Amino acid sequence: MNIREKFDLLGIDNAPGQESLQKNMALDLRGEKLEGAAVDFSHGDVDAHKPTPGSLGVFVEGFLEGGPQAYTPYRGKKDILESVAADLAAFTGAPIDPASEIILTPGTQGALFLAMGANIMPGDRVAIVEPDYFANRKMVEFFGGEMVPVRMDYRSAETGSGIDLPALEKAFADGVKLFLFSNPNNPVGCIYSPEETAAIAKLAKKHDVTLIVDELYSRQVYPGVIHTHLRSLEEVPDSLITIMGPSKTESLSGYRLGAAFGTAEIIERMEKLQAIMALRCSGYNQAVFKTWFHEPEGWMAARVAEHKRIRDDILGVIDAVPGVSARPTDGGSYLFVEIPELEVSLHQFIRIVRELAGVTLTPGTEFGPQFLHQFRINFSQDHDNAVAAMRRVFEIMDRYRK
Amino acid sequence: MNIREKFDLLGIDNAPGQESLQKNMALDLRGEKLEGAAVDFSHGDVDAHKPTPGSLGVFVEGFLEGGPQAYTPYRGKKDILESVAADLAAFTGAPIDPASEIILTPGTQGALFLAMGANIMPGDRVAIVEPDYFANRKMVEFFGGEMVPVRMDYRSAETGSGIDLPALEKAFADGVKLFLFSNPNNPVGCIYSPEETAAIAKLAKKHDVTLIVDELYSRQVYPGVIHTHLRSLEEVPDSLITIMGPSKTESLSGYRLGAAFGTAEIIERMEKLQAIMALRCSGYNQAVFKTWFHEPEGWMAARVAEHKRIRDDILGVIDAVPGVSARPTDGGSYLFVEIPELEVSLHQFIRIVRELAGVTLTPGTEFGPQFLHQFRINFSQDHDNAVAAMRRVFEIMDRYRK
Repeated sequence: MNIREKFDLLGIDNAPGQESLQKNMALDLRGEKLEGAAVDFSHGDVDAHKPTPGSLGVFVEGFLEGGPQAYTPYRGKKDILESVAADLAAFTGAPIDPASEIILTPGTQGALFLAMGANIMPGDRVAIVEPDYFANRKMVEFFGGEMVPVRMDYRSAETGSGIDLPALEKAFADGVKLFLFSNPNNPVGCIYSPEETAAIAKLAKKHDVTLIVDELYSRQVYPGVIHTHLRSLEEVPDSLITIMGPSKTESLSGYRLGAAFGTAEIIERMEKLQAIMALRCSGYNQAVFKTWFHEPEGWMAARVAEHKRIRDDILGVIDAVPGVSARPTDGGSYLFVEIPELEVSLHQFIRIVRELAGVTLTPGTEFGPQFLHQFRINFSQDHDNAVAAMRRVFEIMDRYRK
Repeated sequence: MNIREKFDLLGIDNAPGQESLQKNMALDLRGEKLEGAAVDFSHGDVDAHKPTPGSLGVFVEGFLEGGPQAYTPYRGKKDILESVAADLAAFTGAPIDPASEIILTPGTQGALFLAMGANIMPGDRVAIVEPDYFANRKMVEFFGGEMVPVRMDYRSAETGSGIDLPALEKAFADGVKLFLFSNPNNPVGCIYSPEETAAIAKLAKKHDVTLIVDELYSRQVYPGVIHTHLRSLEEVPDSLITIMGPSKTESLSGYRLGAAFGTAEIIERMEKLQAIMALRCSGYNQAVFKTWFHEPEGWMAARVAEHKRIRDDILGVIDAVPGVSARPTDGGSYLFVEIPELEVSLHQFIRIVRELAGVTLTPGTEFGPQFLHQFRINFSQDHDNAVAAMRRVFEIMDRYRK
């Protein structure tokens, strides 16, 4: 394999946020455009759901602090590491040594990349879930790992994720070294049950598998659902990294802030990789971590409630359309919507919807090659615009039904 | 090689900025501590040389713009790419297509990492200069390349860098695929002569070698020296990436801003890698690029003049000490200082100086294993403190002379 072939595997034309750069393709456009406010469901709308109050003020204070905030050690500034470690330890239910068990990164994407790069040698077997976050498979490919997909039957699971635990155990027994999964899951929004989480931890310990648990959305859990932080369990594997950040629920994505915490030996390797990747999470931006877990009283609960209302009303739209379904989100801002067979391909349909309805969707194939009848939406949008946009999507869809 | 062995190669204990984390070692401390303001020569002091006027205001405007500034395409926001491309094209003397030939990155370190990752396959031969930027060799190691060091005899060169061009040609003829070098050089501060630059471009074209030219310091060139942008030459190789950013002379390092520009096919691969590495240069921070090349009139000239004065006065201190020397900097803020044989090792000496004189230096071994009698300083510091600190360094040194 040469470098061109290697990067051909890393296609990003359909990645969320890249749609404006897509090349023209001939589209089978049927009927008139539908009027309405354009909605980009590929990521959350930080204008509809504003960044945590005070983030800009804290950034400005960081800037004014000058040198020590501009040039921090690669892992992050000492006082910020201490404060974030204490908050994350309290939230996730297990201690974190700020001197050895945490690193601040350029977004949670940076944390994931460092964690994967610090664990994968070419040829290593790496298990990932299907469907799961679209970059997971690309990171495995980039670092030369051998991907072992594990199915998650989220459709038939009444609670939990529906991960195929026997398949996971077989993969572990067959020599998988690393298992990465998101909880809450992206794109489905399901949350692993306490039993599933415990089973994963136990299997990893038994087979000496390193775990990377992406808990980016774990502060946004809807009523009646229990989210279990794997790291809080009694029985955990020796090598365990958890990843979080304030980019989603807190709408601080424009600052690129992430954190990885867990096994000291892995954090040390991640620090070495960060030293050559980007040196550090942007210095001034690190100050914004001070707002994390310190939002005004009631702010977080209100934000979760707002998102539940949007979720429920979009599910109402979905339920009214024959042949369309989505599992209600347990946590986070995603819905993975299943549509019937159409007279155009999924990718064509998604471009048609953009053209005729002004709505941006992410194709299911970003989350696993078999998801040819699904698209993902991030419903962290203006409520009324989002509901109206979903109505337009299905009105367009009806023009292409088989 | 397993993952632990791989990362053992990437030591960062002596890397600039990491000194505060060094473990204790028994030191042969001789005599009293010397009083004086602590100076950290491992990086520039952005309190002594403030960030470009207006950077914070532009950042705040970016934040207030909201969504479109928070979530940009992976390469960067369109209007910012257009403006930065135009300024860089004018500065470097060759056109840049903003749609296909430039990417904004988390700092120039991010740009270097992406450029290296987008070009190196395991086993590829990669030429680097010795001495050169300490991360260069580590990136080659991380991506599994085979390093081919090329000597730069900066000591005997009256002008230019003193790069060993016959050795470079031999390396290219022997199958090197990629050559990375910094110009102005880090750590020496020498600038490649127009003839050397043209020779490198010609050799790369002849042998089909990809070039990555790190011109981070090319806006800070001292009077009487000519800096040639390799990309402005008539004869350049088909694959060429130039890297710059406002982190150094402009003191904007706390924002982590970098840019890479050149061959469209490589930029496309870098974009794919950025998509899984950190998604994008922090969205709000990208707004700060608007200040770059638009500094107040006279500001840049004054900044260069200030640095020349610090350089000259530190060279005055160095020249007065027997057995110590440094080549005058052509461009940038570094001096690579050669010291005589001491009764302690270089690494011990550097820790002793930190302890007894409150001065942080970077050991020459970060720039090549053979530089056992050199240390690097970044003299972008408060003038008086820097000059006094260098006096203390040599006063301590005299206690350890053989």
